[in-house]
Amino acid sequence: MAAPIFDRVAIIGIGLIGSSLARVIRRDNPATHIVACARHADTLASVRRLEIADETTDDPVAAVAGADLVVLATPLSAYAAIAARIAPALKPGAIITDVGSVKEAAIRDIAPALPAGVHFVPGHPVAGTEHSGPEAGFAEMFADRWCILTPLENGDPEAVAKVTALWQLAKMKVVTMPADHHDKVLAVTSHLPHLIAYTIVGTATELGNDLQSEVVAYSAGGFRDFTRIAASDPVMWRDIFLANSDAVLELLQRFSEDLTALQRAIRRGDGETLHKWFTNTRAIRRSIIEAKQA
Amino acid sequence: MAAPIFDRVAIIGIGLIGSSLARVIRRDNPATHIVACARHADTLASVRRLEIADETTDDPVAAVAGADLVVLATPLSAYAAIAARIAPALKPGAIITDVGSVKEAAIRDIAPALPAGVHFVPGHPVAGTEHSGPEAGFAEMFADRWCILTPLENGDPEAVAKVTALWQLAKMKVVTMPADHHDKVLAVTSHLPHLIAYTIVGTATELGNDLQSEVVAYSAGGFRDFTRIAASDPVMWRDIFLANSDAVLELLQRFSEDLTALQRAIRRGDGETLHKWFTNTRAIRRSIIEAKQA
Repeated sequence: MAAPIFDRVAIIGIGLIGSSLARVIRRDNPATHIVACARHADTLASVRRLEIADETTDDPVAAVAGADLVVLATPLSAYAAIAARIAPALKPGAIITDVGSVKEAAIRDIAPALPAGVHFVPGHPVAGTEHSGPEAGFAEMFADRWCILTPLENGDPEAVAKVTALWQLAKMKVVTMPADHHDKVLAVTSHLPHLIAYTIVGTATELGNDLQSEVVAYSAGGFRDFTRIAASDPVMWRDIFLANSDAVLELLQRFSEDLTALQRAIRRGDGETLHKWFTNTRAIRRSIIEAKQA
Repeated sequence: MAAPIFDRVAIIGIGLIGSSLARVIRRDNPATHIVACARHADTLASVRRLEIADETTDDPVAAVAGADLVVLATPLSAYAAIAARIAPALKPGAIITDVGSVKEAAIRDIAPALPAGVHFVPGHPVAGTEHSGPEAGFAEMFADRWCILTPLENGDPEAVAKVTALWQLAKMKVVTMPADHHDKVLAVTSHLPHLIAYTIVGTATELGNDLQSEVVAYSAGGFRDFTRIAASDPVMWRDIFLANSDAVLELLQRFSEDLTALQRAIRRGDGETLHKWFTNTRAIRRSIIEAKQA
């Protein structure tokens, strides 16, 4: 068997993503010692029951002691405090990476706290489900999806290579891009869709009890897909919108303009505008199918 | 074998829904004579290749001759003209039903044209995929989904019972409700979600070519689900929005207000409002899972 990529890995925040990564490491690098860290005792109890870590702790400082790799997989709003706490305890030469959906904010909150000789590789595995918690994880969740790394300008190429190797173990396609570009792309492909899904599901739940049971019964006509997205972890998504507010608000402005245009077309009975718009959107679906991301 | 529900069925408009219904009848009532009618020669050629009808024609008047059941499965905008054309050719006692997503408009466009002694049963099988055309159909598409019938006040109960039996053959759960109520419920569960999906996918396609290829690559983060919905048939959906404009525009107003509230929360960094909203929307997902519609 090949040597493991890392001898000792600390995963701080062991929910859907963190526990799925632990499963990958368990499967492919069984010699790696995994330390799982979470705030809540029941989360740690689940991790022990699932046998996806060698050690569990609620203390991030203890978790990172001796770790070659530290993976931050908590909601974004916890990053700054955790980075400040663990910084003095990090092993010289250790690599720290994260899995957050907003990279400029991650860099802003983590990088300044780190001591010299520790290598930060900001990352974002673009994969997930609407479920949360360590029980919801599975090793194949990452397979064939993209992982975006946004290395720092003065970042260590070897550290980037090792984090790349880790996500390739999870069968991800790894690319690098600047953090600000990542945040713009994800605002379109993920953040705005989630915000819209949350909105529409909320709008529907406010319609009163009579209609609501029927909305549930007849949800197969399209609504159902939105409810799946709008069932995603509330804390994680609150943090994403606050951390990427500039890009999200700019897109929201464009979206609102487009929605107003379609609204006007409906009000005026302008079928031609609607038909043209709906024909264009069909084309992008074909692109996604061709890109094997459907 | 039990006697077929209908001896002779004419399906006018043989796309996703019409062809799926033809497959159901073929499978469970093989003695029924099926006439498929479509405007385009290539559609009819597909139907012959698929062997899901006994006869094909581009003439709705010829199609309905002698039919015990006529199923209108064209886009809504064709209803009035087709109803006017076929009315004189309908067999006395024939039942006519439709599969359109807006029932008040269907009734307005079809009912006045029909002669006495012909029984109209407005219907809506709430099932489908984002694909179109007779090749895309399959008999199991309706299984375990709802079919909503909106019988006329003076409608024939026996005709309603026979149309009910037909959709039960397709394994649908059949319910009845008033047409205006149907249109309000579907505006929430189907029409607004489609409009929003069409909008957001259009917004994304306007971002310029550079970003667009990345939007396709990283679509797994949520956008992908919208593109599937926004790949639905453009003509069918144009007609739905125009036919149900009152209910859709009213909902759109509520949706816009809610979106503005979330937008304001993001701009102000008001995490509490976001978290509360996102927690509420999670609950409706659980209801859908419990109702076995997930």
